[in-house]
Amino acid sequence: MAVVWAIVVAGGSGERFGGPKQWMPLGGRRVVDWSVDAARKAAAGVVLVLPVSDLGRGDLPDVEAVVAGGGSRSASVRAGLAAVPNAAEVIVVHDAVRPLAGGDLFTAAVEAVLGGAAGAVCAVPMTDTLKRVDGMHVVETVSREGLWAVQTPQAFRADVLRAVHADEPDATDDAGLVEAIGEWVVVVAGDRRNLKITDPVDLAVAEALVR
Amino acid sequence: MAVVWAIVVAGGSGERFGGPKQWMPLGGRRVVDWSVDAARKAAAGVVLVLPVSDLGRGDLPDVEAVVAGGGSRSASVRAGLAAVPNAAEVIVVHDAVRPLAGGDLFTAAVEAVLGGAAGAVCAVPMTDTLKRVDGMHVVETVSREGLWAVQTPQAFRADVLRAVHADEPDATDDAGLVEAIGEWVVVVAGDRRNLKITDPVDLAVAEALVR
Repeated sequence: MAVVWAIVVAGGSGERFGGPKQWMPLGGRRVVDWSVDAARKAAAGVVLVLPVSDLGRGDLPDVEAVVAGGGSRSASVRAGLAAVPNAAEVIVVHDAVRPLAGGDLFTAAVEAVLGGAAGAVCAVPMTDTLKRVDGMHVVETVSREGLWAVQTPQAFRADVLRAVHADEPDATDDAGLVEAIGEWVVVVAGDRRNLKITDPVDLAVAEALVR
Repeated sequence: MAVVWAIVVAGGSGERFGGPKQWMPLGGRRVVDWSVDAARKAAAGVVLVLPVSDLGRGDLPDVEAVVAGGGSRSASVRAGLAAVPNAAEVIVVHDAVRPLAGGDLFTAAVEAVLGGAAGAVCAVPMTDTLKRVDGMHVVETVSREGLWAVQTPQAFRADVLRAVHADEPDATDDAGLVEAIGEWVVVVAGDRRNLKITDPVDLAVAEALVR
């Protein structure tokens, strides 16, 4: 059995990943509790990355490690990586504000890596027409053929994820870093319900979905 | 005052626009009732395009005309166009299965056309990372910079919309046809809640949003 660990990321600058969204109530629990529990279904250990201001809370989820995030999404992933034991062979990265990712998504991503991919990202096919816009003027209709919208969880070979973060890049997308060094990244079927909680509308939708 | 008409499209082959979704209950009414009522807020007349099998129903919404759709999205739009009076100067096209488009979206799209654009589409900025995938292998991360996901309503100068449909093209996107002849198309702010009802999950989400 390969050793799998998960990094659940709620840290960061607060612009996209900070803020109190991870602590909002959802279906009788908190957003972060859903995310951590799903990660645990596929991982031997979970590292939770939180804004430094959250570290003093008395109601932290039960995880193997809680660490303070950095000033960017990438820095927060690296803070999590530093707390993942060297024995881990596969590392899954997940957004704390995606509470509706089922354990099956984690398993599918991990299995794709065990099957030979350097990285595996949960994603859903794009169904909307896309326009490239300059100001408000449409300059191009972009083919959605073969386009997938990326979610988390995302699983990686541990050595590859550590390698691409060695230079401390600033990227919102770990898989993109792995692609950039020519390693093989695959998509696995995500779930349209696996939304990211970014505003109160998302939370209302999530509440409807967990009922 | 410019004369504005709306075409609400539920016809088509059944693959993307047919099926019974327009008749599903939502917040005490039916999906199509929401769509027609919103269109009416910005239009002097509404043409409803339905699958031919729906035309015998006794509970059709109160609109100026009900016509049978064609074998494709484009053919259905053309069936609607044929029922729009020549006096119409602006024509708004809207999916019957987008019940949560507010009247303000229709107004914004119409106003952009009155302001000089040939077409105006409601859209929201892409927030997801996009990957171009071949099989399941990621071949490219697509920049989401300047990318917008298109919704309906979409408003057009009537003469332009009629012109691009004269050759009976088969396109899922009317605005793309207008762009292709070099006319000016703009985006106006859509609404993330303006989802398209394509499966039971969407309907559950919509139900949560109308509450």
